[in-house]
Amino acid sequence: MFSDSDPAIRRTRAADATLTVTSGGVPLADQDVVVAQRNHAFLFGCTGFEFIPLANGELVPAPGAGPGGGQGSLGEADSAPVERLAELWLDLFNVATLPFYWGRFEPTRGRPDTERLRNTARWFTERGCPVKGHPLAWHTVSAEWLLELSNEEIVQAQVDRIRRDVTDFAGLIDMWDVINEVVIMPIFDKYDNGLTRICREMGRIPLIRTVFDAAREANPGATLLLNDFDMSAAYECLIEGVLEAGIRIDALGLQSHMHQGYWGEEKTLAILDRFSRYGLPIHFTETTIVSGDLMPAEIVDLNDHQVDEWPSTPEGEERQADEIVRHYRTLLAHPSVEAITYWGMADGGWLGAPGGFVRADGSPKPSYEALRSLVKGDWWLPPTTLRTDGEGRVRLTGALGEYELGAAGRSATFRLDAPGTTSVEVVL
Amino acid sequence: MFSDSDPAIRRTRAADATLTVTSGGVPLADQDVVVAQRNHAFLFGCTGFEFIPLANGELVPAPGAGPGGGQGSLGEADSAPVERLAELWLDLFNVATLPFYWGRFEPTRGRPDTERLRNTARWFTERGCPVKGHPLAWHTVSAEWLLELSNEEIVQAQVDRIRRDVTDFAGLIDMWDVINEVVIMPIFDKYDNGLTRICREMGRIPLIRTVFDAAREANPGATLLLNDFDMSAAYECLIEGVLEAGIRIDALGLQSHMHQGYWGEEKTLAILDRFSRYGLPIHFTETTIVSGDLMPAEIVDLNDHQVDEWPSTPEGEERQADEIVRHYRTLLAHPSVEAITYWGMADGGWLGAPGGFVRADGSPKPSYEALRSLVKGDWWLPPTTLRTDGEGRVRLTGALGEYELGAAGRSATFRLDAPGTTSVEVVL
Repeated sequence: MFSDSDPAIRRTRAADATLTVTSGGVPLADQDVVVAQRNHAFLFGCTGFEFIPLANGELVPAPGAGPGGGQGSLGEADSAPVERLAELWLDLFNVATLPFYWGRFEPTRGRPDTERLRNTARWFTERGCPVKGHPLAWHTVSAEWLLELSNEEIVQAQVDRIRRDVTDFAGLIDMWDVINEVVIMPIFDKYDNGLTRICREMGRIPLIRTVFDAAREANPGATLLLNDFDMSAAYECLIEGVLEAGIRIDALGLQSHMHQGYWGEEKTLAILDRFSRYGLPIHFTETTIVSGDLMPAEIVDLNDHQVDEWPSTPEGEERQADEIVRHYRTLLAHPSVEAITYWGMADGGWLGAPGGFVRADGSPKPSYEALRSLVKGDWWLPPTTLRTDGEGRVRLTGALGEYELGAAGRSATFRLDAPGTTSVEVVL
Repeated sequence: MFSDSDPAIRRTRAADATLTVTSGGVPLADQDVVVAQRNHAFLFGCTGFEFIPLANGELVPAPGAGPGGGQGSLGEADSAPVERLAELWLDLFNVATLPFYWGRFEPTRGRPDTERLRNTARWFTERGCPVKGHPLAWHTVSAEWLLELSNEEIVQAQVDRIRRDVTDFAGLIDMWDVINEVVIMPIFDKYDNGLTRICREMGRIPLIRTVFDAAREANPGATLLLNDFDMSAAYECLIEGVLEAGIRIDALGLQSHMHQGYWGEEKTLAILDRFSRYGLPIHFTETTIVSGDLMPAEIVDLNDHQVDEWPSTPEGEERQADEIVRHYRTLLAHPSVEAITYWGMADGGWLGAPGGFVRADGSPKPSYEALRSLVKGDWWLPPTTLRTDGEGRVRLTGALGEYELGAAGRSATFRLDAPGTTSVEVVL
């Protein structure tokens, strides 16, 4: 049963349900039934970049893994570590973020990496995990070849790219970070790029309108996000301008890379308070909490922090586990938050930071076990035998999500959709 | 003649004019004429708060100042120091900012300080100085009695206040800082106040629309400003949202209190570059450069810096004079800047800072002489005798502004309105 003691989390994330089980129109009275949770309504997300080679058969099976198994050809990576990582991933998360950085997705104009991404998205959806694409427009890692175009042509190329990719993946990817970090986009001055050029010329809001219109038209049913790392009043002002301009945003993306230290509850709550004012769902799109030394506070652009080695430490891992639990529990207690995406399952990703749930050697850290003990522990209903009363009813408290109920060799699924007290009829 | 050597300042602020002088339809050939500048088109502004008592006859004349002159009654301040300050003021500036802080202007609801402010505004306009009112809406120094009202009533009171004051002063004050510091208004958390309440509920842009609509309706010909101290992307985002929402802003107000040190040319130019993108005139509405110790950089809200004494020092005064010249010259070189308002003619104003052009003892600092040597020196045409050619023409290079030409006991005024080469007919 849902056993979190925080009344706010319980009030926001759990339902007290009375199930009435019937079979052939008759209540299944005084019988044992087995109820098991199948999924969370809450989106526990993580990046899935490292599974692209696996999903595309670019790794060789582990030695002895099948007929003719053995060492792969020189340069081919062994699939075993990634498969083990995938098991850990799939046991904890229920939604994946895949990379659509334009400069990597389409380094040569007209030759997008569609097929490999499609295979990867399918790999996830076949395992029950919906996929979000990230991002469709951003000034960082944008396509180099944009620099040869006029501003008008860049806008057209950006719109075409969005239409093409959102269309190509519709049904497989129905959630997109449409545009990333617009607050600094027109004043970004580290290097020339196509997006800063057009954002500066058009203004932030007209560019947002242009890219959202393109994505919306290509997949009207998709969930479209505006995403930023700027948690200051600047992002508030941008959001207010976008909403006043009548642009529909389905969810607000808040990044929360904490390479410089866990925000703490007070800062997190203040941010939630400010960004929930718009009545929009909030997705924490990019969360990182490191299990090693913290990045010095004076660094403003995290990319400026280059270190040779950034190891995970035992003390750091204990701290990370504690902070992960606090962070997730703070966010789940707030009704506006619908998703948390963790940025990098394993260490050694962005900046070489020890930000993962899994060490470089593939072993899970305490943070993995800690989060799993919530997602698949306190907030989860494992297969549980309950006995119906004389009218075929059983009562349970469960996290919002998908369930299966079995009795007498038959089974049915049901959902708990809204928090609070609810009644559900389960027809076997 | 206009003698600034900076080609950018010359290109932006001066005209090369050919005057053709006629009298009775005939060119005034081969004669001496005297040309003198009367005013600058550029708005060299300063606060005029300290002249309210003077303009309202609340000071006693200096001993021996008139018939029966002598010591004033106990408690009445001597007018002489303020009169001396006024002379310095009027010799340097051509536009005044007067205070309309709601909490001081109308501490008791329904009893606004209209008459005293009207007398002061008239005092300035009679001396050739137009007046700007500051501000009509702000969360700081807002009326305490708003706290007893519902949010709906606060909005109505704010609109009524704007309509009343803008109407009462129309013709006398036709320039207003309509709303101040909206970037932080809804998240300001130092103390409860009526404006933060309604800004948080309505959102920034709807509140801006409401107050601008009220001001515009009350005085359609007025110049209406949005004013902020936040020079970050937040203010850009706010401006872009406001413009996308179709709200007409006549000029952007940028504060530039530099109690923590002169910005320097690079930062100033970067700010100009970012805020000139909107094609709107820019007013530097609140400029301070101190002639004493700098406020420590770690202070975020300048109001948090409380010191017993903050003296002006000889080295500080030299530095201030240098920085004042650099700041004004940087701003005048940029075509978007139409006004600079200095915040506090004399030391001892806001925060007790030595930010004035005049010391506490009334003596002008080097900064006063330095700025005056530009405004009434390099950028100014004193009465100058020129000789017309055979076709009644004289040539001059002068700052944009108002001029008088006299010859043979007659005189006429003319204006130089646009930079570059121009021809003007002067009819005596």
